[in-house]
Amino acid sequence: MENFIAYNPTKLHFGKGVMDKLGESISGFGKRVLLVYGGGSIKENGIYDKVIDQLKSIHADVFEYAGIKPNPIVEDVDAAARLGRENNVDAILAVGGGSVIDSAKIISISIPVSHSGWDFYSGEAKPQEAIPLISVLTLAATGTEMNHFAVVQNKATQQKLGFASELIFNKHSFLDPENTYSVSRVYTAYGIADLMVHCTEAYFGAGEATLSDKIVFAIMKDAIEHGEALLHNLNDYDLRAKIMYDATMALNMITMHGRVSGDWGVHSIGHILSLLYDTPHGASLSIVLPAWLKFHKEKLAERIAFIGKNVFDVDGVNETISAFENFFKSVECPIRFSEITKGNEMKDEVLKTMNLNKCGGYIHKLSDEDHKVILDLFW
Amino acid sequence: MENFIAYNPTKLHFGKGVMDKLGESISGFGKRVLLVYGGGSIKENGIYDKVIDQLKSIHADVFEYAGIKPNPIVEDVDAAARLGRENNVDAILAVGGGSVIDSAKIISISIPVSHSGWDFYSGEAKPQEAIPLISVLTLAATGTEMNHFAVVQNKATQQKLGFASELIFNKHSFLDPENTYSVSRVYTAYGIADLMVHCTEAYFGAGEATLSDKIVFAIMKDAIEHGEALLHNLNDYDLRAKIMYDATMALNMITMHGRVSGDWGVHSIGHILSLLYDTPHGASLSIVLPAWLKFHKEKLAERIAFIGKNVFDVDGVNETISAFENFFKSVECPIRFSEITKGNEMKDEVLKTMNLNKCGGYIHKLSDEDHKVILDLFW
Repeated sequence: MENFIAYNPTKLHFGKGVMDKLGESISGFGKRVLLVYGGGSIKENGIYDKVIDQLKSIHADVFEYAGIKPNPIVEDVDAAARLGRENNVDAILAVGGGSVIDSAKIISISIPVSHSGWDFYSGEAKPQEAIPLISVLTLAATGTEMNHFAVVQNKATQQKLGFASELIFNKHSFLDPENTYSVSRVYTAYGIADLMVHCTEAYFGAGEATLSDKIVFAIMKDAIEHGEALLHNLNDYDLRAKIMYDATMALNMITMHGRVSGDWGVHSIGHILSLLYDTPHGASLSIVLPAWLKFHKEKLAERIAFIGKNVFDVDGVNETISAFENFFKSVECPIRFSEITKGNEMKDEVLKTMNLNKCGGYIHKLSDEDHKVILDLFW
Repeated sequence: MENFIAYNPTKLHFGKGVMDKLGESISGFGKRVLLVYGGGSIKENGIYDKVIDQLKSIHADVFEYAGIKPNPIVEDVDAAARLGRENNVDAILAVGGGSVIDSAKIISISIPVSHSGWDFYSGEAKPQEAIPLISVLTLAATGTEMNHFAVVQNKATQQKLGFASELIFNKHSFLDPENTYSVSRVYTAYGIADLMVHCTEAYFGAGEATLSDKIVFAIMKDAIEHGEALLHNLNDYDLRAKIMYDATMALNMITMHGRVSGDWGVHSIGHILSLLYDTPHGASLSIVLPAWLKFHKEKLAERIAFIGKNVFDVDGVNETISAFENFFKSVECPIRFSEITKGNEMKDEVLKTMNLNKCGGYIHKLSDEDHKVILDLFW
């Protein structure tokens, strides 16, 4: 068991009607609020109105930044930070899924400075302070509602990178499962793929952590138990709640304790597909994971079989990989890139970008040659 | 799934050598430090010297309060609070097991006021602020290293009660498994019983929380996997580490999410044995749990069998209760009060005190008649 620090100060408010406390939570920080959201779906499903009611209840001065993209770009981060800076906001309220909340996290550390948020990713700058962030989650998937990570992409440099800092933990995080009712069947499925792969990335990291392994199994089994049922009952409160909480637990660091780190090799490849072709994040992961497992199936034979035994109740490495593929199929997620695209003409560009980004995990490194093998396996 | 708040701001430093950061963590709050510990075993095993070295490294002014009892009493809490108040301390450093850290939590909210710490238990006072608490854990058992609970007893009123407040979360909590090497075999075993019963108290609460159930199973299975081995290898770092982390997870609220509450009926009875006869806390729980399960075996048949299936791999209610008893025996914990005491002359007093304290759980209430039945089952 490796040394670790367990620290997560986010206050998560989970359940039906929890947004009733939103105004009160924000007012603890002040009244000038930067409201950040995405393409406007929250205006259709009524969440925007609820948020505005809460902001009115505390007589907040609200500055809105809308239009964060599903694969968020640093240009939006910088523009929103400018708006927040010019208006001297006391708090940021992010309403949306992973892209909105991740963007808001980088906005929160960009407002107090004058450079681009990308400088935190490139390593040119280190954040010193943050504007308090409160979030309302509308999509169960990335786990950003209760962690200190944020992923943003930069088209100019052809990079999609993750950033971590204790400064960017959400202060308050509101999770009402009813806020996910309007998430389509396909995006609900991608969220399930996302949480499943967060678990495996932790599991295939390094360090013998028996309880953290068992917690990985617990989360995956819960998602398997309820995931497919949810796709057939999108407005079932309890199924929405279970998958929403599974997704939070899959990346709030609880799966990581006692490990050196997770691997994150599957994510690093998945990000390339999103960067180049706007492939939804969850879909990119269900595509890459089986190929990654096949590539590593000799080296990681024992670990692969162990997760198969404990999560899918199957014996053997190949059987485990098939079980992963069958599960992704059962929740209608792609397991080959060719399922969502046509032809082979983009293959060279994907490979080139994988090489350029030196895709690979913290633990299981991948060479340019390895990229080619994995690419063939998931195409 | 019930609404819940997930919130735990304690920063837990886990692993070999983590105390090297102790001085730095304290100095964030100031230099006047109230050092609280127990009967002096930390002077024999070298932990005291390490703590003093860290305090010297930050040139701290240290005020010592030693002698907290294994079942902590409010008189010590009040005396230590006076010492801290008179010396205007900036932080409290608690070094010990559950009794020391629980006492320090109540000391932390008693220093800013002028009344007894017991007034928080009786409901006569509500805490408004707390002196920051840093703790060094020396015994894996109660989970107090990462939660907002504190149990203290009052001989005068014949009560041993729990108190909860967000103000009493440890700010920093240092867990070096090597600090538990000198814990005797029998107290190591009691710690395992304690963590196992914390899991069952959560599990037998109310509210259908499938992931929290699976996490309960994960923690219990990990403790079963490593508990007995630890008793035969008291200086095995990895086994100490695993049980230490299991104990933290068993009561840092992660088992509770999505439930109305845990039950805590077994604890409420166990506390009576500690109050009257100084029965070690873990032993009181391994004694009471099997009796409690037998008492509830019709009403809770399905839940009992479900935990048996998932934790012990057995089928049936009676088989599950036997599996619990066999596990406690395998780690050398008593399952009847008569194993650690003699004769029946104290039975009336136990029953009277159970009635007086209205022992019972938040969910599964117990009448005076029920007390008598359970008493006979565990005597």
